[in-house]
Amino acid sequence: MKANPDSLSQMAATVIGEALQNASVTGVEALYVSNMLADELQSQKHLGALFADEAGLHGVEAMRIGAATAGGAAALRVAYLAVASGDVDLAMVVGAEKMSEGSAVPALAKALDAKLEVPLGANMINRNAELMRMYMERYKVPKNGFANFAVNAHKNAKHNPNAMFRKPVSAATAQKSRVIYAPLRLYDSAPICDGAAAVLLAPTDQARAYTETPVHMLASTVATDYFRLEDRPSPLRLRAAEMSAEKAFRAANVTHADISLFEVHDAFSIMSALQLEAAGFAASGRGWRLAHENKIGLKGKIPITTMGGLKARGHPIGATALYQTCELVLQLTERAGKNQVRKPKLGMMQSIGGVASTVVTHILGN
Amino acid sequence: MKANPDSLSQMAATVIGEALQNASVTGVEALYVSNMLADELQSQKHLGALFADEAGLHGVEAMRIGAATAGGAAALRVAYLAVASGDVDLAMVVGAEKMSEGSAVPALAKALDAKLEVPLGANMINRNAELMRMYMERYKVPKNGFANFAVNAHKNAKHNPNAMFRKPVSAATAQKSRVIYAPLRLYDSAPICDGAAAVLLAPTDQARAYTETPVHMLASTVATDYFRLEDRPSPLRLRAAEMSAEKAFRAANVTHADISLFEVHDAFSIMSALQLEAAGFAASGRGWRLAHENKIGLKGKIPITTMGGLKARGHPIGATALYQTCELVLQLTERAGKNQVRKPKLGMMQSIGGVASTVVTHILGN
Repeated sequence: MKANPDSLSQMAATVIGEALQNASVTGVEALYVSNMLADELQSQKHLGALFADEAGLHGVEAMRIGAATAGGAAALRVAYLAVASGDVDLAMVVGAEKMSEGSAVPALAKALDAKLEVPLGANMINRNAELMRMYMERYKVPKNGFANFAVNAHKNAKHNPNAMFRKPVSAATAQKSRVIYAPLRLYDSAPICDGAAAVLLAPTDQARAYTETPVHMLASTVATDYFRLEDRPSPLRLRAAEMSAEKAFRAANVTHADISLFEVHDAFSIMSALQLEAAGFAASGRGWRLAHENKIGLKGKIPITTMGGLKARGHPIGATALYQTCELVLQLTERAGKNQVRKPKLGMMQSIGGVASTVVTHILGN
Repeated sequence: MKANPDSLSQMAATVIGEALQNASVTGVEALYVSNMLADELQSQKHLGALFADEAGLHGVEAMRIGAATAGGAAALRVAYLAVASGDVDLAMVVGAEKMSEGSAVPALAKALDAKLEVPLGANMINRNAELMRMYMERYKVPKNGFANFAVNAHKNAKHNPNAMFRKPVSAATAQKSRVIYAPLRLYDSAPICDGAAAVLLAPTDQARAYTETPVHMLASTVATDYFRLEDRPSPLRLRAAEMSAEKAFRAANVTHADISLFEVHDAFSIMSALQLEAAGFAASGRGWRLAHENKIGLKGKIPITTMGGLKARGHPIGATALYQTCELVLQLTERAGKNQVRKPKLGMMQSIGGVASTVVTHILGN
């Protein structure tokens, strides 16, 4: 646990201030906020106005957007809609989560069905473990089949100053780590942590007023699935991820083959494998092989978690998709330093709400 | 308390189903959800996907939007942005709140500042009482100065089949009702209740495919203020209401004089008075007189709470602004029956988040 000494509002205000400064502006027209757990952990619901006040943005349009663990990406989607509508010319999205205060795990379980799942003991960990068990059994995945997801994430986090775990790990360490809920191990899981990140959106023809290196948002899509795993015809197919990716490819007029890097929502390693399959980078049951065969590295067939991912950069829920956005922007503008993917054209990112009941996809490009 | 036997999701699914049926469609492209209290009262956060699932809208884009007690209007704003952007051609907004499960008052207080207000005993009731006290003292309002807000609301609720309190009350009853927190009385306050409402939005040139009597959304605006009353230079001026109304008038290219009826957020009668002032219908300190002099009735200078308002129709928080929207649509399409305002051209509605830290304004017209 990496605890931030600032309050949740202060954390948000800090990154809002940095984003304003980077763009050489003193204000925005709208502030779209993402946070999942403040209702429980900070007894605070009214985060749009609260963060705007703390950041000195008095008067600004502000609201909070949620989609459980995919909330940051949903807020980014709303900012995209606001700018695309012509109604808002400069929108800020801020995500902030302070999980070091109080008990995050039961609050996180509210991403699941409170009537049919949680009373039976379901939480985000054992639901993902169940998917992993089904997957390993069905596709005969060896015990070390997922280890390289963690190895890759930690390797890439080493040079990310914003990452939580900057120490490389070996496949042996990952594969022998503590079992959290069989077959899911410690290194299959992203950590609980504090974090905040902010992104500015402007119309294409105005973006150069704020930065010399703007990045285009080519697609912003959301899809949902049957809420509970048990209701899905094929739980090992993330239909919401498939549909959200398909919509995004259509909107950007590209295919998965055009994507240079893919920031997956690796809250659990099984989700990385399933997203790679859902987006078309691997056939069903073969997503894990991309990791196992070292094809997800910075020079691999499809680089993922290029700055450490949720596993090693950290997963402060409401802020996570905004970290992903900043990381894609660094990559696409060739400012990713030692983690730079070679001449990337298009970057894709996905956020998973609950056990993929909601999936949000964005495609960014130069 | 009027308790609904259905679950929160079932309540949402019912009104979604009715809206689909009214529009003769089987699905929508996006579902924007408003609810304030499910985190605490139903242990449920992931309401976009959950409601979509319950309503059989599998695959649809879905998310939850919040702005404390103004959440329904913020969700309506997002649907407006989605349709205005061209990205979504048919959007549903659904608000649902089930306050009969659990303890709503402490959860409602999370609209306030958890560090600087709530630990001192602040809640939505005593904060509004404090504003009312300041107002009555400063403007020398007689003890019965606010009573007609409740009289008007109850009178109009009589013919609204969706209203909670359909029994008229006299000014004497309102004025002698129990003191909740001085000087605020029972009849100054909207009730806690269950409720759900849904609205469909489509581009102007497509709306007639869904109804013979579409209504235009001419403005959708949000503004915020200093979060705490104590930080505001003039707490009796609702700056967020002023700014949100100004933006809305500018967007619709109208003035307050063009508004035929105004659905205020009368969670507390003091808010009705202050909103009437903020929107320009009365000078500072004179909003209460519009009620006192019977100018807020269906044939008055500015009809408000024409179907009962929050006070008598009910205030199921996340659903309230969607009730207001449906009521404005009934009025503008001259289907409001015995409550019909004469030949209305433009209808305005406002939602108040917290103690007016966020205010959302919409203007609808034919």
